[in-house]
Amino acid sequence: MPTPTKQNKKRLRNNLISVMDYNETHLEEKETYDLAECVRYKNTPEITWINIDNVPPLSFLSELGLGFDLHPVIMEDIVNPNQRPKIEILDDYIYVVLKMLTPGKTASQSFISEQVSIVMAEKFVITLQQGVKGDVFDRARMLIRKEKTRIRSLGTDYLVYELIDDIVNNYFKVLEDFGERIEILENELIKNPSQQTLRSIYGLKRSILSLRKAIWPLREVVDILERGDSPLIKKSTRIYLRDIYDRVVQAIDTMETYRDMATGMLDIYLSSLSNRMNSVIKVLTIIATIFMPLTFLAGLYGMNFKYMPGLNASWGFDAMVLVMIAVFCGMIIYFKKKGWL
Amino acid sequence: MPTPTKQNKKRLRNNLISVMDYNETHLEEKETYDLAECVRYKNTPEITWINIDNVPPLSFLSELGLGFDLHPVIMEDIVNPNQRPKIEILDDYIYVVLKMLTPGKTASQSFISEQVSIVMAEKFVITLQQGVKGDVFDRARMLIRKEKTRIRSLGTDYLVYELIDDIVNNYFKVLEDFGERIEILENELIKNPSQQTLRSIYGLKRSILSLRKAIWPLREVVDILERGDSPLIKKSTRIYLRDIYDRVVQAIDTMETYRDMATGMLDIYLSSLSNRMNSVIKVLTIIATIFMPLTFLAGLYGMNFKYMPGLNASWGFDAMVLVMIAVFCGMIIYFKKKGWL
Amino acid sequence: MPTPTKQNKKRLRNNLISVMDYNETHLEEKETYDLAECVRYKNTPEITWINIDNVPPLSFLSELGLGFDLHPVIMEDIVNPNQRPKIEILDDYIYVVLKMLTPGKTASQSFISEQVSIVMAEKFVITLQQGVKGDVFDRARMLIRKEKTRIRSLGTDYLVYELIDDIVNNYFKVLEDFGERIEILENELIKNPSQQTLRSIYGLKRSILSLRKAIWPLREVVDILERGDSPLIKKSTRIYLRDIYDRVVQAIDTMETYRDMATGMLDIYLSSLSNRMNSVIKVLTIIATIFMPLTFLAGLYGMNFKYMPGLNASWGFDAMVLVMIAVFCGMIIYFKKKGWL
Amino acid sequence: MPTPTKQNKKRLRNNLISVMDYNETHLEEKETYDLAECVRYKNTPEITWINIDNVPPLSFLSELGLGFDLHPVIMEDIVNPNQRPKIEILDDYIYVVLKMLTPGKTASQSFISEQVSIVMAEKFVITLQQGVKGDVFDRARMLIRKEKTRIRSLGTDYLVYELIDDIVNNYFKVLEDFGERIEILENELIKNPSQQTLRSIYGLKRSILSLRKAIWPLREVVDILERGDSPLIKKSTRIYLRDIYDRVVQAIDTMETYRDMATGMLDIYLSSLSNRMNSVIKVLTIIATIFMPLTFLAGLYGMNFKYMPGLNASWGFDAMVLVMIAVFCGMIIYFKKKGWL
Amino acid sequence: MPTPTKQNKKRLRNNLISVMDYNETHLEEKETYDLAECVRYKNTPEITWINIDNVPPLSFLSELGLGFDLHPVIMEDIVNPNQRPKIEILDDYIYVVLKMLTPGKTASQSFISEQVSIVMAEKFVITLQQGVKGDVFDRARMLIRKEKTRIRSLGTDYLVYELIDDIVNNYFKVLEDFGERIEILENELIKNPSQQTLRSIYGLKRSILSLRKAIWPLREVVDILERGDSPLIKKSTRIYLRDIYDRVVQAIDTMETYRDMATGMLDIYLSSLSNRMNSVIKVLTIIATIFMPLTFLAGLYGMNFKYMPGLNASWGFDAMVLVMIAVFCGMIIYFKKKGWL
Repeated sequence: MPTPTKQNKKRLRNNLISVMDYNETHLEEKETYDLAECVRYKNTPEITWINIDNVPPLSFLSELGLGFDLHPVIMEDIVNPNQRPKIEILDDYIYVVLKMLTPGKTASQSFISEQVSIVMAEKFVITLQQGVKGDVFDRARMLIRKEKTRIRSLGTDYLVYELIDDIVNNYFKVLEDFGERIEILENELIKNPSQQTLRSIYGLKRSILSLRKAIWPLREVVDILERGDSPLIKKSTRIYLRDIYDRVVQAIDTMETYRDMATGMLDIYLSSLSNRMNSVIKVLTIIATIFMPLTFLAGLYGMNFKYMPGLNASWGFDAMVLVMIAVFCGMIIYFKKKGWL
Repeated sequence: MPTPTKQNKKRLRNNLISVMDYNETHLEEKETYDLAECVRYKNTPEITWINIDNVPPLSFLSELGLGFDLHPVIMEDIVNPNQRPKIEILDDYIYVVLKMLTPGKTASQSFISEQVSIVMAEKFVITLQQGVKGDVFDRARMLIRKEKTRIRSLGTDYLVYELIDDIVNNYFKVLEDFGERIEILENELIKNPSQQTLRSIYGLKRSILSLRKAIWPLREVVDILERGDSPLIKKSTRIYLRDIYDRVVQAIDTMETYRDMATGMLDIYLSSLSNRMNSVIKVLTIIATIFMPLTFLAGLYGMNFKYMPGLNASWGFDAMVLVMIAVFCGMIIYFKKKGWL
Repeated sequence: MPTPTKQNKKRLRNNLISVMDYNETHLEEKETYDLAECVRYKNTPEITWINIDNVPPLSFLSELGLGFDLHPVIMEDIVNPNQRPKIEILDDYIYVVLKMLTPGKTASQSFISEQVSIVMAEKFVITLQQGVKGDVFDRARMLIRKEKTRIRSLGTDYLVYELIDDIVNNYFKVLEDFGERIEILENELIKNPSQQTLRSIYGLKRSILSLRKAIWPLREVVDILERGDSPLIKKSTRIYLRDIYDRVVQAIDTMETYRDMATGMLDIYLSSLSNRMNSVIKVLTIIATIFMPLTFLAGLYGMNFKYMPGLNASWGFDAMVLVMIAVFCGMIIYFKKKGWL
Repeated sequence: MPTPTKQNKKRLRNNLISVMDYNETHLEEKETYDLAECVRYKNTPEITWINIDNVPPLSFLSELGLGFDLHPVIMEDIVNPNQRPKIEILDDYIYVVLKMLTPGKTASQSFISEQVSIVMAEKFVITLQQGVKGDVFDRARMLIRKEKTRIRSLGTDYLVYELIDDIVNNYFKVLEDFGERIEILENELIKNPSQQTLRSIYGLKRSILSLRKAIWPLREVVDILERGDSPLIKKSTRIYLRDIYDRVVQAIDTMETYRDMATGMLDIYLSSLSNRMNSVIKVLTIIATIFMPLTFLAGLYGMNFKYMPGLNASWGFDAMVLVMIAVFCGMIIYFKKKGWL
Repeated sequence: MPTPTKQNKKRLRNNLISVMDYNETHLEEKETYDLAECVRYKNTPEITWINIDNVPPLSFLSELGLGFDLHPVIMEDIVNPNQRPKIEILDDYIYVVLKMLTPGKTASQSFISEQVSIVMAEKFVITLQQGVKGDVFDRARMLIRKEKTRIRSLGTDYLVYELIDDIVNNYFKVLEDFGERIEILENELIKNPSQQTLRSIYGLKRSILSLRKAIWPLREVVDILERGDSPLIKKSTRIYLRDIYDRVVQAIDTMETYRDMATGMLDIYLSSLSNRMNSVIKVLTIIATIFMPLTFLAGLYGMNFKYMPGLNASWGFDAMVLVMIAVFCGMIIYFKKKGWL
């Protein structure tokens, strides 16, 4: 078995490996940067969970692949950060890759998507995260640390269930974020829609498209995991997996609803544009319709013909002003009747 | 078996438990706040229906779970109010969760959705409602109280059929409400469409999206219930379940039709906006087209050139007015021909 | 067996029952208002076709249900006029419910939809129509009255085929009606689109949505009837049913095409609105662009400055008029070049 | 066997029957108007291909039905010119109905659709065309006339493959026509879109809808023909049928792409309308914005107040003109900055 | 076995044939223009990979067909450059046709699509490219040239996997190109949308439609290759094929996302058109609303009535100017309040 050179060891300092080795009565926890240390847990009778942060490049992982007998294709999938969620059932182990989603921290970023690879065998589970050891799996760690929990007495399949469950729970947090953004956008749409609102709706739709790519395939993954005939999944665990399946479907439903709502908001935005144009043009039309006839009347007596009726009469100007007022009032009444005022 | 502490008992006062224990000849009815009392009905040879209002939190229900041997996952599903309608067939019992819909009481609320969990075993049925013991299940209670009804002589599967049937019947009441709203909106669209109408259409679409999430999955639930090989569902009950299935499909059909109609109304709204803008702009154009040439003519003889034809003639003004009237009439004829007047 | 009270008999006068009892050599026809008379045909060796008009309420039909051994769920389905087309295969008989469509008689009504229930057993067929005994089944009656027709020598399954065939034939009459309406609308769209045209398109779409609800489910019904393993359907009849199946699919295809065409017409309508607005605004722009500069020029020499070039010259006015004509012609040339005139 | 009366024989002169009777070494060709002559080929050991032009009405075809033992339903399907492409596998023969498409000869007609019925048995193939004996099947005839071709040495299933292949090849000719029309429309859209362009797009969409009704169902027909367990289709022929299947799918793909492109063209058309309106309104706004302030300034000194600054000064007019030029230039600069000029 | 005539040999100079004959320990490479030379590799115990550039016409390939026993239908498919990606599993070999995509070199060409046919038997693989021997397969050649690689020790199925893998990898390069184009278009949309932008979006959609036709069917091809029961595909290779399958699905997902984004961009473009029109019309309305009343006021005192209030007063003009300024300011305040300024 090759041992990593010193230089490798240095690089691997970014890739903290946390090991939990437990059974109903026993628990050993350890943090290391040395893959070789993990490999020796492979054959312990206890269940071993190895978590590796910041998936290192393929060359550094070869030891892992050799130590745990992983297929070359699986090793390549692990280090490729753009996998579509999928499952691969092999003779000795099951490989699952999925996306861990966490709500984005800034306004421009809807959510953060990190890839998680899970390798599950009879007696060990290896998880490889794209990011650093975050809080998503902390709940599972807590459960393992407590004695007499279900997780301690059941096998690796239950551990994997708990891990996927934690990941799926976070999907709902992301979806709640989306729900809030939609509500804010809806209010904006009613009160003060602007070109910026449109861009937000487009951004929302784009984010939902990304979200879909992460969540949709998971449905099939969990389904295969539950229905697949792998002896690694015990019958008693299947009900838990079905529960996850139902929740993934629910997440998809919600996502699709949000998508339809975004489309609906677009329609409202477009029609509010039309409405606004309507009201602008109405103002223009009212002003023009009132003042054009009046200006014409004024122009009429602005002509320099010598002989015009009433030109030299003392009542001329007053009569004209009266006519103008009549025209003005007539127009106002006409617009009121049309419902434009 | 743990008994709830006094404090628990107090809290549980919000969660009325109504028990009906019956067979063809016998009927016992009881209302209580004490879960322990229910548990002893588990093994009676009669059929027992336990209904619990305002699903209490998980900690208060543990007694129920232990007493009736319910799987932990089921217990968690029962207290989670945001379940997607689903069915879980276990060895000893069937768990169904679905949405009870009732028409909304105010204009802004299209319908109220409450989650109902049904646990059905050979000899007992437990229903847990999110809301209070309402009238939806009252019809079933009436039927049980009567002697010689089918419900009294048949098993728990028939009871569950009657309960789901009552729930599905209410879906049609909600759909009728939607139908009426659509008719009102259609009239509004033809007579006096406004920005408010648009918002109502969007609200309608949104409500239909929520409705879909409640009704769509039920189709599959009832299908599994009917086709599933559970021995708890007798062959004679399947025809009743198929009937529910057909009606759920009908509800879905109606819902989809409403959705398409809402989309159609949006198109009408948008084109009525265009039409209105057209008519506003027409008024503007007519006014401008008539008065601009006239004002120009007036301006022409408003110039202060010393020598202009007819300036000092007595017929000058009259001739100009005649020209103006001719222009005016010409324009009117032109617009009539164009069909704008 | 209970007999209807006198009052029942009175009510049933609206529900003409026509009975045909036939085999290859024998034919007996009868019209009655008394259900009891029908029941005795149940066990005749001949094939009996009982047709009941204006489906009476459940209480009046109980005799039928008892006499012919119909399941309570079927009886309820028969009297519920809003069934979705469906099929129920029971041990002794097959129950089919479908919609009989006839072209509407007035412009506002695209088609009339009446529910027809068909109960088919080894030796009898019961049909219950929502409306009165119309002409749709008359063709089948004619065929039965003739001797040596296929219908006389074959069983109830062939009779049911003929009945469904007659109903499906009428679907095509309704679809032809739709085709004609679409052609009229297309002509209207090209020649003179108005807000009324839009409403017609919307009405058309709405009608197609109703039509879909009647025709779509029938596809599955006929498929189940043909493929279902019921011994009531003989192998030799299956080819006939497959023929109906193909025609129902064809009706659906046509309907979907009409739907797409209605959507296409909406697009044309909306763009014709835009086009019309374009042409209105063009007139406005042309008028404004020609007369605003001219009016300005007139206004320029309408100022009362004492010293203006050419003010007192004899050629002043003529020069100005020439300038104005030049401006006017320049504008006209500009618009010609732009293709607006 | 009944013989047609003289009158029938006369009528059948429009329905040329061409017979080819061949095996590897022998070929007999014949043209006739007499169905009876064909029937005697039924039992020859050679393969017989009978092609009938202008499908005659049912009454004239009864001889064919009787002679070749065709099911009444098949006979009815043959004479109904509005069949959906379908396949019917019977014990002794296979019946296929499909659409032969040829590019339209005039601009208004995108393509001509003729129905072709194919009846294929162990030793004979009957084809009935809606139109006259055209060139589509001529290639097959040529192949048969040559000796030592595959078609001569293989059975009726291979003959049917060749016939369907010829028909499907023509689909691609029709699709090429569509492709050219789309390219022409795209050029029109970019250079000079008009209301006529819109109508062409709508016509294109309509044609594609008709095309779909002809091609879509064929996919299933060929699939059933290939996968169906009929002993009439030899295993060696299946690879040929799969080839046709792939090409039908390709035709469908192309058709759907054209459909999406037509939709895309509509979007371009609508937005080009908006663009044009934008540019018209811009001209209006520029003219109004320049000349309204100028006209106002002229109007200001057109007032007849006795005392106005500079009224009697020699520099008055020149100063005003300078102010006007400044306003004019300011406006021009403003519009340049806005990008409107 | 026929030998090509001299003239053929000349023509075939455009069709370089490169042969690789290898096993774990042995490697022979050869380039030739003579098909006959390849044929003799057919029965070597080593694995032979024959690559032919610029697929020659059918007549020149007959030698290949005869030499390697290829079915006539396969030979026809090979020379038809417009195949839909498909797979044909025969007894002795598998035929796969798919599209090799490479990013386009000019702006107007999104990608280049070349057809590749792969014939895979137990001991040989023949690839026929539409273009010239490019770099896509160079990686596979390198791998074969190295000793002790997986490709050298495994069979033809693994070789085919590597070839398809190289092709699919190029799909992602094309998709990255699309992603960049979309980002550029999005920026253009926000900063300066023009009619040209619209045309680019339409072009993008069109390219995606072409891309779909190349990628979509490949999903099924790879699926059949993996699941098909052909003994030519060893069990150990299936995991590699599944990996390709997952990546094809991922490519499809990305493509569909791009398609939805293109649609979303169109909506933004259309609404930006509306917005721009809104702002143009606002300018017009503001100008008209300010200057029309002012011009009217000026016109009022431009009338030539002898007696008008203040006409001869020294304060007349100043008072009028003050009134005008008040009107002007009132209008400005009104527009500020409306949010138009």
